Amino acid sequence: MASSTSLTLSQALLARATSLHQSSTDRVSLATFTGLKSSSTTTTTTPLLSSSRRAANRRCAALPGPARTRPGAVKAVSVETAVGQAADTALVEKSINTIRFLAIDAVEKANSGHPGLPMGCAPMGHVLYDEVMRYNPKNPYWFNRDRFVLSAGHGCMLQYALLHLAGYDSVQEEDLKSFRQWGSRTPGHPENFETPGVEVTTGPLGQGIANAVGLALAEKHLAARYNKPDNEIVDHYTYVILGDGCQMEGISNEACSLAGHWGLGKLIAFYDDNHISIDGDTEIAFTESVDKRFEGLGWHVIWVKNGNTGYDEIRAAIKEAKAVTDKPTLIKVTTTIGFGSPNKANSYSVHGSALGAKEVDATRKNLGWPFEPFHVPEDVKKHWSRHAPKGSALEAEWNAKFAEYEKKYKEEAAELKSIITGELPVGWEKALPTYTPESPADATRNLSQQCLNALAKVLPGFLGGSADLASSNMTLLKMFGDFQKDTPEERNVRFGVREHGMGAICNGIALHSPGGLIPYCATFFVFTDYMRAAIRISALSEAGVIYVMTHDSIGLGEDGPTHQPIEHIASFRAMPNILMLRPADGNETAGAYKVAVLNRKRPSILALSRQKLKQLPGTSIEGVEKGGYIISDNSSGNKPDVILIGTGSELEIAAQAAEELRKEGKAVRVVSFISWELFDEQSDAYKESVLPAAVSARVSIEAGSTFGWEKIIGSKGKAIGIDRFGASAPAGRIYKEYGLTAEAVIAAAKELS
Amino acid sequence: MASSTSLTLSQALLARATSLHQSSTDRVSLATFTGLKSSSTTTTTTPLLSSSRRAANRRCAALPGPARTRPGAVKAVSVETAVGQAADTALVEKSINTIRFLAIDAVEKANSGHPGLPMGCAPMGHVLYDEVMRYNPKNPYWFNRDRFVLSAGHGCMLQYALLHLAGYDSVQEEDLKSFRQWGSRTPGHPENFETPGVEVTTGPLGQGIANAVGLALAEKHLAARYNKPDNEIVDHYTYVILGDGCQMEGISNEACSLAGHWGLGKLIAFYDDNHISIDGDTEIAFTESVDKRFEGLGWHVIWVKNGNTGYDEIRAAIKEAKAVTDKPTLIKVTTTIGFGSPNKANSYSVHGSALGAKEVDATRKNLGWPFEPFHVPEDVKKHWSRHAPKGSALEAEWNAKFAEYEKKYKEEAAELKSIITGELPVGWEKALPTYTPESPADATRNLSQQCLNALAKVLPGFLGGSADLASSNMTLLKMFGDFQKDTPEERNVRFGVREHGMGAICNGIALHSPGGLIPYCATFFVFTDYMRAAIRISALSEAGVIYVMTHDSIGLGEDGPTHQPIEHIASFRAMPNILMLRPADGNETAGAYKVAVLNRKRPSILALSRQKLKQLPGTSIEGVEKGGYIISDNSSGNKPDVILIGTGSELEIAAQAAEELRKEGKAVRVVSFISWELFDEQSDAYKESVLPAAVSARVSIEAGSTFGWEKIIGSKGKAIGIDRFGASAPAGRIYKEYGLTAEAVIAAAKELS
Repeated sequence: MASSTSLTLSQALLARATSLHQSSTDRVSLATFTGLKSSSTTTTTTPLLSSSRRAANRRCAALPGPARTRPGAVKAVSVETAVGQAADTALVEKSINTIRFLAIDAVEKANSGHPGLPMGCAPMGHVLYDEVMRYNPKNPYWFNRDRFVLSAGHGCMLQYALLHLAGYDSVQEEDLKSFRQWGSRTPGHPENFETPGVEVTTGPLGQGIANAVGLALAEKHLAARYNKPDNEIVDHYTYVILGDGCQMEGISNEACSLAGHWGLGKLIAFYDDNHISIDGDTEIAFTESVDKRFEGLGWHVIWVKNGNTGYDEIRAAIKEAKAVTDKPTLIKVTTTIGFGSPNKANSYSVHGSALGAKEVDATRKNLGWPFEPFHVPEDVKKHWSRHAPKGSALEAEWNAKFAEYEKKYKEEAAELKSIITGELPVGWEKALPTYTPESPADATRNLSQQCLNALAKVLPGFLGGSADLASSNMTLLKMFGDFQKDTPEERNVRFGVREHGMGAICNGIALHSPGGLIPYCATFFVFTDYMRAAIRISALSEAGVIYVMTHDSIGLGEDGPTHQPIEHIASFRAMPNILMLRPADGNETAGAYKVAVLNRKRPSILALSRQKLKQLPGTSIEGVEKGGYIISDNSSGNKPDVILIGTGSELEIAAQAAEELRKEGKAVRVVSFISWELFDEQSDAYKESVLPAAVSARVSIEAGSTFGWEKIIGSKGKAIGIDRFGASAPAGRIYKEYGLTAEAVIAAAKELS
Repeated sequence: MASSTSLTLSQALLARATSLHQSSTDRVSLATFTGLKSSSTTTTTTPLLSSSRRAANRRCAALPGPARTRPGAVKAVSVETAVGQAADTALVEKSINTIRFLAIDAVEKANSGHPGLPMGCAPMGHVLYDEVMRYNPKNPYWFNRDRFVLSAGHGCMLQYALLHLAGYDSVQEEDLKSFRQWGSRTPGHPENFETPGVEVTTGPLGQGIANAVGLALAEKHLAARYNKPDNEIVDHYTYVILGDGCQMEGISNEACSLAGHWGLGKLIAFYDDNHISIDGDTEIAFTESVDKRFEGLGWHVIWVKNGNTGYDEIRAAIKEAKAVTDKPTLIKVTTTIGFGSPNKANSYSVHGSALGAKEVDATRKNLGWPFEPFHVPEDVKKHWSRHAPKGSALEAEWNAKFAEYEKKYKEEAAELKSIITGELPVGWEKALPTYTPESPADATRNLSQQCLNALAKVLPGFLGGSADLASSNMTLLKMFGDFQKDTPEERNVRFGVREHGMGAICNGIALHSPGGLIPYCATFFVFTDYMRAAIRISALSEAGVIYVMTHDSIGLGEDGPTHQPIEHIASFRAMPNILMLRPADGNETAGAYKVAVLNRKRPSILALSRQKLKQLPGTSIEGVEKGGYIISDNSSGNKPDVILIGTGSELEIAAQAAEELRKEGKAVRVVSFISWELFDEQSDAYKESVLPAAVSARVSIEAGSTFGWEKIIGSKGKAIGIDRFGASAPAGRIYKEYGLTAEAVIAAAKELS
């Protein structure tokens, strides 16, 4: 990674960004703000609402939740916003309808997509992006920006419309017109790696709100570490919009329970309470009191009863949320899905398909919208145009603040800078421990702890924890305390038994400061099943989370088949853009961590043993970096009689078998195959040097499914593994009963060679 | 399956059961009940409690939750129980300490396991199994038994001790002594397939409570369908013990939200509120108000403040819970983990390891327990001995009731009987639709709906639904309404957006009446990631759930990579005891359902297309049953020039490529590879007839990861697939851009042959 010493932080971030557009770099020009004057608000009228909507509203009125804000209770005579004063209500409404129709038109043109949410959430979207959030559209990577997450990712046209109005280069008119098309920057769900301005990748429900908890955690943590009484250099909010679907998913309850526990006061979530999901009215499957649940989770809860036109209610709710600094806030905003569509609003039919030409026309009439598709009225355009200069000004202001900070707090500034830019300190990898065959045997989970503690000393953005298994996963950082509500500067995160939430929170941490914050998280390897959806998002969204997965096989023994992974290694080898690493001893564990830390855009899974393993001759960090490499060989001319291939705890068995076979005069090569993905990336010549095509006598041994091993051992090889579930017994006994022994390897080798 | 017409229902069930022990069959003998007389209770004294425990109690006292029962408020002068009167308090305490020490001793002997929970939960365990639950230890499969689920499965010694005391043949003294050993019936976590008397397989946290929701759903559903005003033939409770870990897991919130929504009044869950998890005090990660959350979820909540010695509190709570018939009940029982251990109680150190000889001694002293390890005092033994005759009497009574029912309601009785015995109606498979190449092209998700509706007509125990995607997964049963609180007799289950809970609930339904209740559930294939832990438990615990997974590839188009499965097929092919089926057209979809219904001890995943597919010549239900089969071939002598292999939507591409190649004079075989597992089970001769070893020119095409295909195509074959994430665009475009085309197949075939 290029050094950024000669660049400003923002320039460094922009340079690093993989924006598909050439972003303007003159974002520091301080254009004078010329926002429109606000006038007093008038009472807005509600367009056509279906009668079932009214029924839903009645039901809402009967709910026991708090209703601190009431329609009309707050007058927005002069609303203070992040970028000056808000527009008058007529213009606000015009802007909101612009958002609605951009969504309607894009979905209509694609004949695919979800118009309902953008139509219902346009008011809160407008208030957020136009009045509340602090960001710089010309530098989507400005460090101190407010973060926004659309957890209900199917409604992505809402966010694209907002990014477009706000002046992000990533979403121009042609991008809106190519919504959901090949190669566009406006894919069917928000993808951070496609669209600058999108913070995280959402769509799979519940992930976004959990990511947002991670983003807010990162802010709270960095603020606690780096803010000074005279200079609060880290200071931003995290906003989310989530829907009924997100609320039903267990992951959101996990993450929100933690957010409450941690008191993430700068996390403000809007719950789009529209009472409609794909299968119809939420009455059919979702009748719990969300308010009560969130109060139980330790959140501050506000109810905006009129999310369709109650702009002042929305504004007041945000103000109230900001005033509550020790709790996250859920703003339940009752809206009408597909608001404005006379025949489809408040029905599932507006959720996930184009309105159709006829209904688009009817909606245009109903909302008084005479414009062509994709048209942004001039006054709306002009109104939003202030965000580019204002954003640049916000960033310039912050840059000046950082310069002050740098002068006064040199060390802290350097550290924070390295987190912001994602530059790893020179020589960090020297901190990793190395071992000799004489080093004591140890479980790789323990060796992993040595690495974690070594890395935490040299990597300022290294933090993480376990899902209530710290003492089993061996993940505690000994020099740090617990990240808690009142000690957010600490780096041991206690996730509780919430694997799924943990993974998604780590995605949020990683994407808060890509490259700089390096989150790790841990549980038993088998429980990756609980968090697989989050791990997949790590891989897809290029979040370099490190997954520390211990108890990686039947070697865990007595806990039995519910706890013994079998198919898990194979299942991750099949997943794109992820590194599946199974180290065999100390050097390989250190090598795995080196690879994991270097891969900031690709998550790593480390499968680690519960049981003690010998330190093997021939293993090395350099070897690990190749994915597969020779640890011992008594052949000559690259033509051994047989190649024994092992991973993790079974490499020791392969080495032991080789020793026996060599005694009998065989030329035997032992290969460690710690990461298939890394080996795949090597040159053909290197691959041939490790696995010569001429040697078809190959035996693999791995305490997991043999699925996929034919690729390595060929049709003539023999894979020793486990293709059934495990069993409850001491580990040694299971290994023997399941035939994972040196004897089995020797027998197979003899049969083949 | 053998006909059971000549057997009683219970005999049929026993005959079917795979009990490892020969169960006694004289369970209908109506031994006279000679329960011990109860005397008035005395105030029990609390053994040594650490001071931190007292702090925890103080904290509890400050919680806002309801405390309807207060210590001492209820006098158990004469407690009515399911099996007569309870023992006097001294004997109760002795029984409870027996449970504690059986757990302590077994863990000590194994030097592995979790003594903390059994020691804390022994009182509620005793009350449940000795006083409340209705079961027959000599026939663990008696249909109308109360179900018990230990969701906190690590505490399994609690359940083993209870089964032992209650007289189950599956857990005898030698079984307790071989706890966690190879081949024992007392594995490290409760496994229904190892230990008769265990209903479901738990250990992975949160699964059990969700299974219990499924068990309770099954009871409510069957009761609604078959009970008559004069004969409530289906009538039992479902009891659960869950801990802090279960509570933290998102899956439990999902399932409990549904339980509240459905008003499962006969579900009674004990929450072991012991404030300790593996990482220490729950204060570090779990400070939400569980009471408030469950009230929000629509449960009745009771707090038993003294779960250690407040036996009457526990009894009163159960009585209260039973009185609330329209809501499930959560009984929060505040206990001390490791109760009785003077130095380890109320600490994480007692959670998951043996106490150690010294502390075992100290605990024996503290609780006044002079006995040898594994000793059950005579009076305790005698007290519990009434359960075998009483259980037989309960079953005999029910059998008599069933005989009455059968006389009066012949049709219903026959149907219910088939559900109870798991016998499929003769000729059911004839209901499956068949197709010809002339039948209109259609998406396999639509063809699936035809099968689902055909099967629901002929299989009385067929029910299921979708995670809020019924209209996309095409899973509605048209002749039935929704299973809801007030219409529990219906068969369309609305799970909401709760995939994980859905899977686990279906496991519960399947295991309520194995073979007879056939649950299916549905979501997009990619979201198996959300429910993978539940799917794995289906496979492990032999729950034949049918997973209807639509939108099975990039073929879903615009929703993009978050919604497009890539590695999922491979990941399930690697999982033991599960069938991964990817049908190509109507006949194959019907065949997949035939296989799925027949496999009652192995779950099936059907990967189904969103997009239309042609009905192909050569496909057949019989072919599907072989896993892989030839759909067309113009070669002779079992020696084609090239074999093209496809699955699902890509079989059509393979067929198209074959047509082109044949025009050019090639001898081409096309093989459908719908299920690798089924093909693996065929004879070598059959396999050779489909994939002759002599033909190495093999091309596979599948819109998913190529991982694993080397096994089928050999080292010289070519796998066409997708080893990166998908993209957002119309499906046809992605197929083209990703090279999944007939042209690509043709090119590969020419290169190889």
